[in-house]
This record gives sequence, C-alpha cells and structure tokens, in this order.
Amino acid sequence: MKKVQLNPVGWMSQLSQVEVAQLQDSTHSDLYDMFRNCCLAVLNSGVDEDNFEVLFAPYDDFDVKLIRRERGVKIELINPPEVAFVDGKLVHGVHEHLFAVLRDLLYMGNKYAFLHQTAPVDGPSTTDMVFDMLRHAKALEGNDELNTIVCWGGHSINLNEYKYTKEVGYQLGLREMNICTGCGPGAMKGPMKGAAIGHAKQRYKKGRYIGISEPSIIAAEPPNAIVNELIIMPDIEKRLEAFVRIAHGIVIFPGGVGTAEELLYLLGILMNERNAQQPFPVILTGPAGSEGYFEAIDEFIGATLGEAAQSKYQIIVDDPPEVARTLRADMEKVNKYRRAMGDAFSFNWSLKIDPPFQRPFVPTHKTMGALALHQDQNVADLAVVLREAFSGIVAGNVKAEGIRQIKEHGPFSLTGDPDLMTRIDGLLKSFVAQQRMKLPGSEYKPCYTISRGK
Amino acid sequence: MKKVQLNPVGWMSQLSQVEVAQLQDSTHSDLYDMFRNCCLAVLNSGVDEDNFEVLFAPYDDFDVKLIRRERGVKIELINPPEVAFVDGKLVHGVHEHLFAVLRDLLYMGNKYAFLHQTAPVDGPSTTDMVFDMLRHAKALEGNDELNTIVCWGGHSINLNEYKYTKEVGYQLGLREMNICTGCGPGAMKGPMKGAAIGHAKQRYKKGRYIGISEPSIIAAEPPNAIVNELIIMPDIEKRLEAFVRIAHGIVIFPGGVGTAEELLYLLGILMNERNAQQPFPVILTGPAGSEGYFEAIDEFIGATLGEAAQSKYQIIVDDPPEVARTLRADMEKVNKYRRAMGDAFSFNWSLKIDPPFQRPFVPTHKTMGALALHQDQNVADLAVVLREAFSGIVAGNVKAEGIRQIKEHGPFSLTGDPDLMTRIDGLLKSFVAQQRMKLPGSEYKPCYTISRGK
Amino acid sequence: MKKVQLNPVGWMSQLSQVEVAQLQDSTHSDLYDMFRNCCLAVLNSGVDEDNFEVLFAPYDDFDVKLIRRERGVKIELINPPEVAFVDGKLVHGVHEHLFAVLRDLLYMGNKYAFLHQTAPVDGPSTTDMVFDMLRHAKALEGNDELNTIVCWGGHSINLNEYKYTKEVGYQLGLREMNICTGCGPGAMKGPMKGAAIGHAKQRYKKGRYIGISEPSIIAAEPPNAIVNELIIMPDIEKRLEAFVRIAHGIVIFPGGVGTAEELLYLLGILMNERNAQQPFPVILTGPAGSEGYFEAIDEFIGATLGEAAQSKYQIIVDDPPEVARTLRADMEKVNKYRRAMGDAFSFNWSLKIDPPFQRPFVPTHKTMGALALHQDQNVADLAVVLREAFSGIVAGNVKAEGIRQIKEHGPFSLTGDPDLMTRIDGLLKSFVAQQRMKLPGSEYKPCYTISRGK
Amino acid sequence: MKKVQLNPVGWMSQLSQVEVAQLQDSTHSDLYDMFRNCCLAVLNSGVDEDNFEVLFAPYDDFDVKLIRRERGVKIELINPPEVAFVDGKLVHGVHEHLFAVLRDLLYMGNKYAFLHQTAPVDGPSTTDMVFDMLRHAKALEGNDELNTIVCWGGHSINLNEYKYTKEVGYQLGLREMNICTGCGPGAMKGPMKGAAIGHAKQRYKKGRYIGISEPSIIAAEPPNAIVNELIIMPDIEKRLEAFVRIAHGIVIFPGGVGTAEELLYLLGILMNERNAQQPFPVILTGPAGSEGYFEAIDEFIGATLGEAAQSKYQIIVDDPPEVARTLRADMEKVNKYRRAMGDAFSFNWSLKIDPPFQRPFVPTHKTMGALALHQDQNVADLAVVLREAFSGIVAGNVKAEGIRQIKEHGPFSLTGDPDLMTRIDGLLKSFVAQQRMKLPGSEYKPCYTISRGK
Repeated sequence: MKKVQLNPVGWMSQLSQVEVAQLQDSTHSDLYDMFRNCCLAVLNSGVDEDNFEVLFAPYDDFDVKLIRRERGVKIELINPPEVAFVDGKLVHGVHEHLFAVLRDLLYMGNKYAFLHQTAPVDGPSTTDMVFDMLRHAKALEGNDELNTIVCWGGHSINLNEYKYTKEVGYQLGLREMNICTGCGPGAMKGPMKGAAIGHAKQRYKKGRYIGISEPSIIAAEPPNAIVNELIIMPDIEKRLEAFVRIAHGIVIFPGGVGTAEELLYLLGILMNERNAQQPFPVILTGPAGSEGYFEAIDEFIGATLGEAAQSKYQIIVDDPPEVARTLRADMEKVNKYRRAMGDAFSFNWSLKIDPPFQRPFVPTHKTMGALALHQDQNVADLAVVLREAFSGIVAGNVKAEGIRQIKEHGPFSLTGDPDLMTRIDGLLKSFVAQQRMKLPGSEYKPCYTISRGK
Repeated sequence: MKKVQLNPVGWMSQLSQVEVAQLQDSTHSDLYDMFRNCCLAVLNSGVDEDNFEVLFAPYDDFDVKLIRRERGVKIELINPPEVAFVDGKLVHGVHEHLFAVLRDLLYMGNKYAFLHQTAPVDGPSTTDMVFDMLRHAKALEGNDELNTIVCWGGHSINLNEYKYTKEVGYQLGLREMNICTGCGPGAMKGPMKGAAIGHAKQRYKKGRYIGISEPSIIAAEPPNAIVNELIIMPDIEKRLEAFVRIAHGIVIFPGGVGTAEELLYLLGILMNERNAQQPFPVILTGPAGSEGYFEAIDEFIGATLGEAAQSKYQIIVDDPPEVARTLRADMEKVNKYRRAMGDAFSFNWSLKIDPPFQRPFVPTHKTMGALALHQDQNVADLAVVLREAFSGIVAGNVKAEGIRQIKEHGPFSLTGDPDLMTRIDGLLKSFVAQQRMKLPGSEYKPCYTISRGK
Repeated sequence: MKKVQLNPVGWMSQLSQVEVAQLQDSTHSDLYDMFRNCCLAVLNSGVDEDNFEVLFAPYDDFDVKLIRRERGVKIELINPPEVAFVDGKLVHGVHEHLFAVLRDLLYMGNKYAFLHQTAPVDGPSTTDMVFDMLRHAKALEGNDELNTIVCWGGHSINLNEYKYTKEVGYQLGLREMNICTGCGPGAMKGPMKGAAIGHAKQRYKKGRYIGISEPSIIAAEPPNAIVNELIIMPDIEKRLEAFVRIAHGIVIFPGGVGTAEELLYLLGILMNERNAQQPFPVILTGPAGSEGYFEAIDEFIGATLGEAAQSKYQIIVDDPPEVARTLRADMEKVNKYRRAMGDAFSFNWSLKIDPPFQRPFVPTHKTMGALALHQDQNVADLAVVLREAFSGIVAGNVKAEGIRQIKEHGPFSLTGDPDLMTRIDGLLKSFVAQQRMKLPGSEYKPCYTISRGK
Repeated sequence: MKKVQLNPVGWMSQLSQVEVAQLQDSTHSDLYDMFRNCCLAVLNSGVDEDNFEVLFAPYDDFDVKLIRRERGVKIELINPPEVAFVDGKLVHGVHEHLFAVLRDLLYMGNKYAFLHQTAPVDGPSTTDMVFDMLRHAKALEGNDELNTIVCWGGHSINLNEYKYTKEVGYQLGLREMNICTGCGPGAMKGPMKGAAIGHAKQRYKKGRYIGISEPSIIAAEPPNAIVNELIIMPDIEKRLEAFVRIAHGIVIFPGGVGTAEELLYLLGILMNERNAQQPFPVILTGPAGSEGYFEAIDEFIGATLGEAAQSKYQIIVDDPPEVARTLRADMEKVNKYRRAMGDAFSFNWSLKIDPPFQRPFVPTHKTMGALALHQDQNVADLAVVLREAFSGIVAGNVKAEGIRQIKEHGPFSLTGDPDLMTRIDGLLKSFVAQQRMKLPGSEYKPCYTISRGK
C-alpha cells in the first residue's frame, strides 16, 4: 500500500485548531465521498478521459485521509495514481489542486454547510458566499485589470474547432488577457493553451488559467494540464454565478447542451432590466464550418427569448483576432461602468442575479417533469426553466447521479407547449446531428423524451 | 473642513457586501469611539508624545467615517493631523495602519463581538481567535523561519538604556532576526531601529517590525516610525497571548510596572507543568548601570514565585552580541521541539495557556481591592493575581479609563498578606526611585495604596 | 511607408556615446546587410516557413535603421511584416529579439570584429569571446543550477518524431530542466513546447527556452514562438562551442546532415583525451519507427571513429521519461566534476576544445574539394574533417551563400579514401531515403558528388 | 593566521579566464597596495574613525589575495578585522563592497589603465569611462526615475548639523528620493539615515544609498553602515564627474574646504554657457546657527565668480521640508529637459564638462605653487584653479600622500593676486574658526601658506 503525505499549501497552510477539528469531523460526513472523488479526479489532471467510470475503475483501492497535527492538517493519499507523480514526487500543480479541493469542499463546506442544499437561499447571501469562496481561493487578488475572459464551449469538440479555440486563446494571450474556463478538455483547454503561447511571446508573467468546476462534473472533466488556479464551487448554480461575476467578458465556442445551458443562464440574467446598463461583452464564435451550431442556437433564442436576448451577444465567425480585438475594445466600456458604479474590477457586484437563477436545481424525473415549459410567461422566467431543462439533460448525459437515475427509471420526460417543445426538440436534434451530445464515434442515446402538451 | 478619502488596502480591500454592511452598522456602536481614537493615534505615528490628552487636544474636530461603495469600503478622514501627510498625501505606512485599525477593531470586532467582554471565554476559542486575528493581519505568513524576537521594556527609559536597546536590535538584525514589540517609543522602538540597520548591512530584505497594541494603550503609545505591521488586539490579555504565541524568543529590557506585568504573565505560563518541556528563550538584559532594575525584579520573583520561576529566564548585562548569539543558538532547540510536536513555526499552538491568563481583567476599585494577594496559593495562581495587580497600576498610570477612575475615587487600594505586600511595595518603590513610573522629570504620584492585611 | 521606432531593452539600453557612435558607423559596413536580414527573420518569428527566399520575398521594401539619441540608440523599422504586431504594437518578445540581434551582430561585432573571419584564432581567446557573448546575453546568470539541456535534431522531422520531441521536452520540464536549441522549428521547437507545459504543471517560473542561432541560418530557421532568449553567434563554430559550453547535457533527436555535423563536432571534442574524465551526458533518442536513423549514424560512427566514440553517447528508443530520468541522474556526476575542478556551473570552462574545432570552415568548391577524407589520421582529426564535410553539405542545402555557389558552379565534389567515401555515401543516402535532406514532399537534388579516390 | 575565502558576487561572479588572468597579474602592480588598503577600509565600514593611521594601525598583518579557480576568482582575506564579521561570518554588505573594490580598482583598472594617470585625457573618453564604471556597478539600472539626490557636506560637522542632515534625508525619503554621497560619516551619512526612515514609512522598497569614493579618500572615510551601493572612482575628478552625471539634484550641507572644492567644481561646469539651458537643482542648506558657513561661501563666490555663479544655487536655511519640496518640484524641469534633449534619465550625457575639469590634478609643492590664482582670466578658468587649490588643501589635510608631502617639505605655498589671496585667506580662516578644517577638539595646523603676489 503506497502512502504519500502532503503538507498544506495556500490558505490551508494556516488553519486554527478549531478549523482543523471541524475538517476532521467532516471526514465522517457524506461530503467525504465527494472529497475523495474530487481528489482522484485532480490526481488525473491532464489525462484524456472524460468517462468517470473508466477513469476511476483502476483506483478502487485509492483513498485519502486528513492527518491532524498540532500545526494544521496534512493530506494522506493512499494508492494514488502514478500519473500524478514524477520520479516519486507529486507534481507541484496537482499538490496545489488537492488543497484547493480540501479548501472548497470541506473547509468552505463546513463554513457554509451549503452542499446538497436545495432550498432557495436568499439572493445576497448566495452572492456573498460566492465572493467568499473566490476570495479564499485568491482568485480576486490578481483580477483587477479587466482582463479575465471566461470561455465556454464543448469538451468534445472536433479538431478543427479545438484548433480554433487555441487560436482565439492565442489572440487573447497576445493582448494580455487571462482565461477562465470550466476546467476540462476541448473548449475548456484550447483557449488556455493558446493564451499560454501568447503570454510567452509578450513576456507576460502573470498568466492566469483559472478552472472553475463543481463536484459532480470534475470527475468527468478533470482539470487540464494548464489550469493553474482551481476552484470547486458547491453546485452548478454557484459555479455559473462565479463565472459571470469574475468575468470581464465571455466567449462561447461551439458545444452541446451544456453550453446552451450556460448561454441561457447568462441571457436570463442580462435581460433583467436592472442589468440593462451593464456592459457585458458576450461573443459566440467558431471556425468556418461550425456556423450551423450558432445558427441553430441563435434561431432558438430568437424564437423563444426574442430579439432582446439576441442583442446581448455578437456572433463572429472564423476570425480570432477580431474576437480578441472586440473584447479588448469593450474593456473600456466595462472600465467606465465599474468606475461609475463604484464597483470592484475583480468581482461584478453590480450585476443583479435574481433568486431563481441562484436556486439549485436538482434534476430528477419529478423536477424535470414539472418544468413549466411554455411561453406564456415572461422571458426571464422562461430562461430559468429552459436552463433547468438543459441542465437536467447534461446530468443525464454525463453526471454520475443523473446517469444512475436514467438507468433506473428511463429517460426524463419533458412536457410543454407544443410549439416550444418542437423548438427544443429541433435544437437538441441539431446537437445530435452535429455529434455534440457525446463523444464523436459513439451513438447518442437520448436521456429524455419530448412530449408536446396540448 | 479638510476631507481625505482612502482606498482600502490589504485584507480590507476585498470585502463582501454583507461584511461592508456590518462594518457600517458598527459605526453606531460604542466601538466606534475607540475606532476614531485609534485612527487618531495612528495618524500621530512617530510623534514623540505619550500623554494622550496632550496628543489629542488639538484634534477635537477630527473625525473618521466609513464610506460604502459597491466594491467595498473607504475611510474618510475629517480634519486629520497634518503630520501624517507629505505634500498633501497621506504617508503610505500610515495608510496601511489605518486599515489595520479598521480590520482589527471593527471587522474582527464584528466577527467575534469580543470587545469589552469580561466574562471568561473558554480556552481553545480565545486562542483560535488570537490565531485568526494574526492570520488576517498576515502576521503568520512570513513567520516560519524562527526569527521573531519579541522585545518588552519601558516606553520612557533613559538615553543610555535606549541606546542599549538599539544595540541589541542591531545585533539581532545582523543575525536576520525580526522584531515584535508593543509598538510605542523607548524599548519598543530602539530594537526596531537597531535591527533595521543590521538588516540593511546584511542586505536582508524581509525585515519585519511588528507592533502589537490594544485600543486602550495605542493612544499613549502610537506606533513608532519603524513599525511596518500593526496589529491591534482587543484587550491586554489577548495582546499578551499574541506576543507569546508569535514569539520565538523574548528579550526584556528595563521598564516599569508594565514590563513587570508582562514578565509575570510569561512566567505564570512557563511554570505550567504542561509547558515544562517547551524551550522558550527569555533574556532580561540592560546596559551597565541598569543592573538595579533586574536585581529588584529577580529578587521579587525569587521571593514570590520561587527559584523555578527564576530558572525560566537568563540575565545578561551589557552584552548585546551575547544576547543575540544566545537567542540564535536557542532557535535550534525551538526548531527541534516544534518539529517533534508537529507544531507550527509561525504560531506556538503547543504552549498551554490556562483560562485565568486569558480572562480579561478590568481594573476598578472593586476588582483591585478584591485581588487575593497572598502566598497561600500555588505559584501559577499567584502569578495571575500579581499580573492583574500590576496591570491595574499601569491602567491607573497611563490609560484614559484608569486615570479617570483614580481622579474620581482616589488611588486603588491593594490589600494582602503583609510579607507579600512589603515585597510589592518595595518593588514599586524601586521603580519610582529609578524614575520608571512616569516620564523622567515629573514627580510620580502613586495611583495605589498598599495595605498590609493581618 | 510605415515606420516604427523601438526603444532599446536589455544590455543595449545602456550604451556609452562612443559605443553608440561605433554602432552607427557599422551601418555602412557589410555587416549591415546581415543585420537587416536577421531582423527580418526575427520579425517572422513563429512563421512556419523555412525557405528564406519565400520568407523574404514579400519584404523587399523592408529596412532597418539605427537612430542615435543623446541617451543611446533606437531601432527604426521600415515596412516591417505585419505578423510581428498585435493591434499595431510590436510583440514584446520580438522587440527583445531585435535588440539581441543588434547586440550580437553589431555591438559584439564591433567589439571583436569577428565576422567573416576565417583565419584561425588562438584557442583561449575564442572561448573568452564565446563566454563574453553569452554573458552579455545574460545567458549565464540563470544557468547555475545544472539544468540546461541542449536539444539538437532536424527542423523538418515527421509528425510522429515531432510529437516525441514534445514528449521528451515535457518530461524534462517536469524535472525542472530548461531547453536550449538551435532556435528553429521541428526538433528545435518541440522540446521547448513540451517543457513549457511541464514547467507550468510544476509551477516552475524560471523556464528558459534559449535559442542559439547564427547569421547564415537564422533566416532559414527564424526563432520559434517559445524562444525567450535569443543569441546569435557570429559563425557556426562559435555557435557549436556556445552549445557545448552552456549545456549540462545534450539530447540528439533524429535529423539530417546538420544533426550529424553537430554529433561529429561533439564526439571529436569528447574524444580529446584531456576530456576523458569529463562527465558529459549525451543521449540519442527518437520514437519507435525512427530507429533507422540512429542505426545508420551509430554504424557510421563505429566504422569511422570507432568504439571509443560510440561509448560517448547512449541510445534510448521511445522512452521519454527514461531520457529525462537519465539526464537528471547524470547531473549528480556533472555537479561533482564541476566542483572538483572548481569550474563554473554556468559555463563549462574545463572542456578542452582544440583549435581545429574552433577554426571557421567556409565551404567553397575549393575547400570542400580539399578535405582530407581518409582514415589514415587520428580520429579527432578525422572528426574535424567529417564535420566540415557535413557542414558544407548543410550550406549547399539551405544557406543562401551555399545555394548560390551550387547554382553557379554545380555540386561540391568530395574526394577521398574509397572505403570512407562509401560509408559517407551510404549515410547520406540513408538520409535521403528517410527524407531528412529536404522538406518532406520535395525531391532532394544532392549538392555534392562523391568520388572515391584510389 | 585567520583566512577567509569569499565567493564573487555581482559582475565579478562572471569573469572570463583572460579577465581572471589579468586580475591576477595586477596583484604584482602598484595598484595592489591601493586595493589592499581599500579592502581594509571597507572591512571597517561603519567604524567611527576618520584617521586612517589610527584605523589601520591594528591591522599590519592584514592581507588580501586573489585566488584563481577554473570558474573565476575568489578573494582571500588574511587576518581581517573582527568587526566585519558576525559569529564568524562576513557581513553580507561588506562582502558586496569588497567585490565592488575589486571591480572598480583592479578589473576596471585593467580595462582602462587609468590610475595615476596625470596626462590630460580628451573629453569624450573620460565621460565614456565614467559611464562604463557606473554601468558595471549597476548604478544606472535603477536610476531612471529622477530621484537621485547627491548630498555633499563635511564629514565632521557638529551634532546639530548632523541631525539636520538626517532631517533633510528624512524629508527626501518621504518623497521617495534616493541618496548618493561621498560615502563617509557626517553629512555623508546623515541624509542616508534619514532617508532610510522616510523610505520605511512610505514602504518604499527601492531605497538606494549610493556611496561614491576614491582610493585616496576611502581610508579616511570608510563607507558608513547604510551605503548599499559602493563605487570607487579612480581619482577625484572622475568621482566628481560621476556625482554630477548621476545626480538629478544636489544638496550641499555645511562642510569644510572639501565641500568648497565640490561647489567650485560644480559652479565651474554650470557656468559653461553650453550648460546654460540645463536645469540643475543645487541647494545649499543647513540648520539655524550654521548660516555663517553659507554666508562666507556665498560672499566668496560672489566676489570671485560673480553673480552669475551665485544664481546657480539656492540657499535654504533651517527648512528640511522646503528643501525636499523644492527638489521634488524641480524634477519636472529636469524631466522636460532630458526628454527634449533625448537624454538618459540615469546619466546626464548632455551636461558639458570641459577638459580642465576632467584633468587629474595631483597636488605637489610644485603644482600648488604654480596655480594661476588671479582674476585676470575668465570665471570658468578661475573656478578650475580655485577648485585645484582647495583640492590640494584637502589632500594636505587628510590624504596619506598629501600629509606625507607636508611632513617632508612643509606647507604648500599659494601665491597670487593680492585681492584674491585675501579672499581665499578669509574663507579658509572662517573654516578654521568654525572648526571645519579638522575634527572638533583638535587644533588645526594649516597645510598651506598664503602669499599675496604683487
């Protein structure tokens, strides 16, 4: 049995004894399984495998313990994957990531007891909590130069699209912008890789490659090799909020239903009339040949949320320098607005996010079945519901818990307004046709059925 | 009316909105007066005046406000002292100190609601709180090289003694040790000044000059010009605990009753048998000509706490290099012990401090009169009581609240075991004779009377 | 006409007036054309084109001037390639490289008047000059940790081999080793790219990607995008000497006749008996499928220079971690030897390089024809001659001056000992067969003929 | 016999073998005695003793050797003064200073063969040499923010004046200005000490305390404890040129004949009409009570060089903040001028210094007797001669060689124009009366006689 003990780094290297005691207590909680799994995912950083079952299979005998010492806490790895070690020594970046997992899951988890929390939390305190987590992760300290670009997109895009994400990242890097993504492969890795080259050419030493994950997704999307700051938000809604509050601009690459979920979340917020004055650069972009994705999405949004929603983003096809130039130019507006508001550069406090966007949505057959999928409501409410629908489909596709439910009870059933359901069906089918629902090569078996209500 | 607005620095530059709201609420609390006064003291950093009434007199129209902005909080100074400004711009170090005051008094005060708290607090949580305050002050981050020497001693020592404290500081600085003191003039300034020269000669760039104060004393002892880290603990007991937990060694220079209080506190802790194995270097030192002070103290301790207490310190007369060499050599023992205990280098968790040493003592005529000043108790308990007696005398001498009480009700009356009272009287009289109770030149009018019980 | 003026950086930002005057005088010398061409090559950094004629064709109207100001010298670019600019601003790394060109070609050229110098230079001073150039380039400052690995290999290797060079670089980077190459594409770029990822994962901030070029080759091999230190040695022999003196270990990937030239140079030196004790790690490595290259080379060396030469290198096939582990382990021997010798870590003074290895060889039909290609001499002399023969073939293949000569007078004619000539012919033919003489796809037309003397 | 070997630091840690060989050859030259003495002076840094005979007396058996190793050169100290060591280890700053001595005396001495050079050197190359020495000392790198204030003044001023120099330094330090002086005690130390406190209060980390000395004076004025950059110019004229070319402003405190020499040198240059446009802040300042010094100087200058010379400086009495404010404000003019000229911020190339100001003056009875002390010449020429006269008196007062000559041949005899001689006599007598010619306490015995020619 191989054992490796790790000294704490970062915030976790300075804990009070009461904090250490709480951490150790938490090892008996059900948080602990999640902690163990996230550690295992992190130890597989950079491994090209997004099926968590395949990834985890060889590591049945892996375990992780917390060792309490007078001075604080150590992590002990039992039978960790060899891939994380170089000549018997844990790779430094992975070491940092493991303590990020400890910090975000157990330490912050103790502080807020927020996990598995499905009851609505009132607005301000969710935001304060998101802020506090980013602050502890030191993600805000270097974030005051208006250069954090959040990139969303699929984790299994084709090679042409992947190269394009690298090229956009390169152009952003040349303009000394940093990259924040969801932390996995594909469109989450390409922009970081490109930016790293751009930063090197500009001798820019402060390159940040921030990965924001959450416990149920990190196993399917372990941090890629470039991520140098890892943050694990407790659930998908807080992860989304972290993205939009840390971002100075957002680029959306082709992706699947997860990417659509992110876009719907974002549009729902930006359409809030209290955010009407907020300059918030959003660019949808992809290489020549990927126009189909954006056309389908754009058409769907036009038909459901309307032109107002469409006005919130700009589509740029096959022009990486233009993407980067546009964002760089938009920073001036962001700068002016934040100054006028007295808002921070590092965290967008002035963006209003209404409670429905913060409320954790736990997809089950019941909650999915109950979604109010009709257009007889205002567009912000519709955006919420659509976001939730797509979120459930992501869960059914790739998350352990979702897959388990589907296996047990069959596909989720979505019911609603016939016209809307037709549009949803059309969009999802276009994703299937473009092979965006699963890894290329495998055939996609839907985790949902669409029923057109009367 | 002159107004100056200051942007937050350090920890205070990243506050959540709920924290900002709490800060602003606190401006209506009685903490606020204390906050205002500490700010005023800090704005007088480096001014040679230890009478707070004289110091504050010209600044009746001074005020300080908190201004809430979306991004956080600003401090607004109204009619601040000119001395803190250079060509209209606040000195950077003072700027930092003001936000240290805000952090320690209001922000941490909100977190712990600890001020004016006289009820006993159970052990662990006081220590956790002290740790948390030092952590927020970033005082622990650079404190892991076993080189923090706490220096105690009088704030109005004579010139010969002052030069000696500089010389000791210089020798410590040459050996790359850092200085932590109570933050005022005299023996709190000299070692920092000397160390700064020693550090410069060694090209040592990480010189730390930590001042730990508390609200009731900072006005009488504003931070000297060298202090580059200011921490304000909520009361005298937590300040003392901060000193002993951050220290890797302690040097005690000649001083008055305050210095005696500190030594009694320290001995009381070190005599705890659970600390028997703990290597804790304590050196009493002064120049030739100041032996009288140490003789009086040493005799008093021998007679009251006994030889065991005397064995906890070493007296070195007129030999600064020897002081520094001894401490440097002792660090090896500290190193071994901390490693053996698994204790932190930056914070001495393994030192046991029993609740009586943590319990805030508020000197009033009643509490002073009730002190159990007799030798019919174990020495640790006696050390507690003696510490409190001397603490009360310090308050009566120099603290605003103490002086007010004395003015109103006459001197504190100390009663006890005749033999013990004679020794106390003798020690205090020796301080008076050596002009250690007040500034040289003025005549000392005792704030206490000694009654020998039967 | 577009003009861009650049402020000096690095060493060139502090010039005396006499140095500036000399620089400006040199703009009338024949060095200047070379300077202009190197600048143009640098401005094309990262462009994938190794045919200088194609590369330079669009920039007939490009020019570069030196502008003298009281404080020093500026570079003025006239009609520079757009590719070097981002939103109208020169990429910072290219800016640095341009002043490296100025430093190495004109400033050091003035100091040593070394260019086009074909007469033998006596040993010590060539080495002193090489040292001085590396010192001015600040290449020695960070080079004292025994972690500089020089990588040689072809610039147009196949994709499989390229990926392998990246993988080796990655493994070296994980072990915090830095990369120094000849600065172009292919095997000169792959190891840098891989190391950059390895460095990132280890949070290693001091990654160095040193490119050492020379004026006649830089146009054909402009610095790749990763090079963050550029040095241009005046001729091929000084470039080779810079490589071996700065290296703590050398990795040789598959390549063509240029790579063979480098290996012969190295073996000739290592076989000098005064270098017999010198530990000098040399590893020949490539992916599965590339064994042919090493077999041909190894066999050729065995047949010509003998087993002693073969013992100077190790061949590792298809095992990047093993390459890196071996080098890391060898550093211990290098460490011991340098200490024992009192030698510098940053520059291998104790390696003896005899004058024939320092003497610039200028390939012409006459010098090529006169090469003493026979085995009736000691192996060190033979290594010199073989190195020169291969050097001439490289010139005829890719260097402007060499190509011009071949165009005018037909192929170089090599004559010698039949057996040796047969071996040379065999080796060269194997390179042709493996498509290592030219870019894949084009047919290679030899720039030499082989005659077997009697 | 105690021996200590030192590894090279700074520029001296990277020498070529030819440079090392030259260094070692120089140990047989007459430079070497000077090198040994400067090392001894540096080893006494911070010792308060300005009589070199007293200082050196205990160290007859001190010696210094250069040890050649493959990698470069080490310094070996034999029987060095204990004062430079802490617990057996050389103080780091002294270590640096020793290699500065090696660099400036032997390394640069070899490069320029400039020592003891009395023949006139043509203008440009002296300046290039001064530049090159400052460049090698890395004194120019951090000197581009227009904040280097050169302070001149006596080394044995009274306590009141010393405190004043500290106060001026403090005010300069608060304004983030750096200090450059002649490197000894008194007015050369006070400003540095004050600035160090000012820098600390402003958290200014880049404080520079540059000492520029020369071989014949360093023994009498060893670097004080604050100097963190030491430069030793080969002779007094190059030292003066280094001061004026590195300065962004000059403050002149009370001093003796040496200070007068410096002022005359400066005025002679500033009165050059080609410098008429050059903004060059010069402030004469001292505490209340020291007006006499400035009145005497000012009157002398008015009577000899005229009003034009008087207009080149400003006298500020007893107002340190005003001194600092004035200089800070003047920086704007300096900024504009340097930009307009295209001149460097770190080195004042555009200041014209005519050859007579660069020509080394070696005071002997013959050269002193031959000085053309009459007003029948233009004021620049007169300034040259007066500077030389005062320079000779400094030598006779404090320099080893000067003292030896006076001891052997009696006082220097100065002859000239009666009116001028009367003025010179008056000025010198006022220095004697103010006890500025020697240490307070001792009686001054003039090293000169004044003859009034007809």
